[in-house]
Amino acid sequence: MPKFFVAASNIFGGVAYIEGKDAEHLRVLRLRRGEKLIVCDGEGNDYECRLTAVGPGSAEAEVVRVIPSRSEPDVSAQVYAAFPKGDKAETIVQKSVELGASRIVFFRSERCVSRPDAAAIVKKLERWNKISEEAAKQCGRASIPEVGIELSFESMLAHASQTQLGLFFWEEERQRSLKKTLEAAGDGIVSASIVTGPEGGFEKREAEAAERAGLIPVTLGGRILRCETAPLCALTALMYHTNNLE
Amino acid sequence: MPKFFVAASNIFGGVAYIEGKDAEHLRVLRLRRGEKLIVCDGEGNDYECRLTAVGPGSAEAEVVRVIPSRSEPDVSAQVYAAFPKGDKAETIVQKSVELGASRIVFFRSERCVSRPDAAAIVKKLERWNKISEEAAKQCGRASIPEVGIELSFESMLAHASQTQLGLFFWEEERQRSLKKTLEAAGDGIVSASIVTGPEGGFEKREAEAAERAGLIPVTLGGRILRCETAPLCALTALMYHTNNLE
Repeated sequence: MPKFFVAASNIFGGVAYIEGKDAEHLRVLRLRRGEKLIVCDGEGNDYECRLTAVGPGSAEAEVVRVIPSRSEPDVSAQVYAAFPKGDKAETIVQKSVELGASRIVFFRSERCVSRPDAAAIVKKLERWNKISEEAAKQCGRASIPEVGIELSFESMLAHASQTQLGLFFWEEERQRSLKKTLEAAGDGIVSASIVTGPEGGFEKREAEAAERAGLIPVTLGGRILRCETAPLCALTALMYHTNNLE
Repeated sequence: MPKFFVAASNIFGGVAYIEGKDAEHLRVLRLRRGEKLIVCDGEGNDYECRLTAVGPGSAEAEVVRVIPSRSEPDVSAQVYAAFPKGDKAETIVQKSVELGASRIVFFRSERCVSRPDAAAIVKKLERWNKISEEAAKQCGRASIPEVGIELSFESMLAHASQTQLGLFFWEEERQRSLKKTLEAAGDGIVSASIVTGPEGGFEKREAEAAERAGLIPVTLGGRILRCETAPLCALTALMYHTNNLE
């Protein structure tokens, strides 16, 4: 069934009101009255609906039943990635959404080669959030992960340390693996932050600051992963560990 | 320490002989006699060496000690991916090498949009193997995974079923998760094939043929992963499960 995102405030009294470009898309798909579709409220709820009215700029669909979403993980995974070069940020956003991240945040770190100014960041944020929305629709997520930025390394640490597990991936960490760390956390991990560095890795003093802020320095093993591969690898492992790849 | 790949036959009598573009690269890095470097024989062995002679087209390095490679996983993971569109095959090759695949093979499946002819495939194979070599060097692998193709879906199945675990990722499989399948296989998984489909997924009859050939239909969960994301997700989970991300 085709899937549409609608603001939660547009679903009430057993009816979903579809407007704007989504209503347009519905016409492109040539959906007619009586046909079924899935409406997501972007907050984790999926509704099976039946079209009751199709107009030029709006449509109405009766809610048939609420569908338990198979696509939303039960762990809130926040990806904090240092600004990478080129279009790698887009890769990180798209794949993180597919793999189940609840939020993606970029931040500046000492060895970042990419240092976008404020105007460039505003433009990039717009584009990254659009990529997140497209990826969420494509992979069937029931919510659209927000893409944001942190203005400083310190504010990133302050936020990343607020989740149950703050995982700071550092290539100079040799002992503490992700698996040992997740196993030590026990069952029922509800939230985790995945913090990964830029092309050149983190500075030692950044790793020390992360540890002081309560994050755990973690290794992903002996292969040196690219800066866009590391967050996806860590996120996949977290989803696998918490039974969110099934 | 800088890392160089040398054919195993070029390491004998306690000396590594570095030739061609690697010797050139050594000069670009301005390495001098007495400096240390890592030489890999591409077969899983790393050697710490000391440069003893640097000439215009060749160099010699004395083997100081054999280094146990941290980068080679103890599970042989073969990635079989249906030909994807555009440059997604390059992404699959590069990331699979980083994540520890031992071999990457592309094959044609019914819903493949990409249908390169023989001449195009020869050219692509050359490029993909170059990407594999570069990725292996960049991430510190001790061997260079080969990239190949299968001439038919049937020959792919025949080869993929020769590993201990043949995992056929199919979006219509709802019950059998990767985690349950790996857990059921017990400790000490030595080899696995990861078979993933093209943009439109596999046909039902392809999944049936895979099952007849001894492969196990497996789901990666409720989110529909892109055709380049699925193999990387499955490979990461396999490496995590078998303690090869530490």
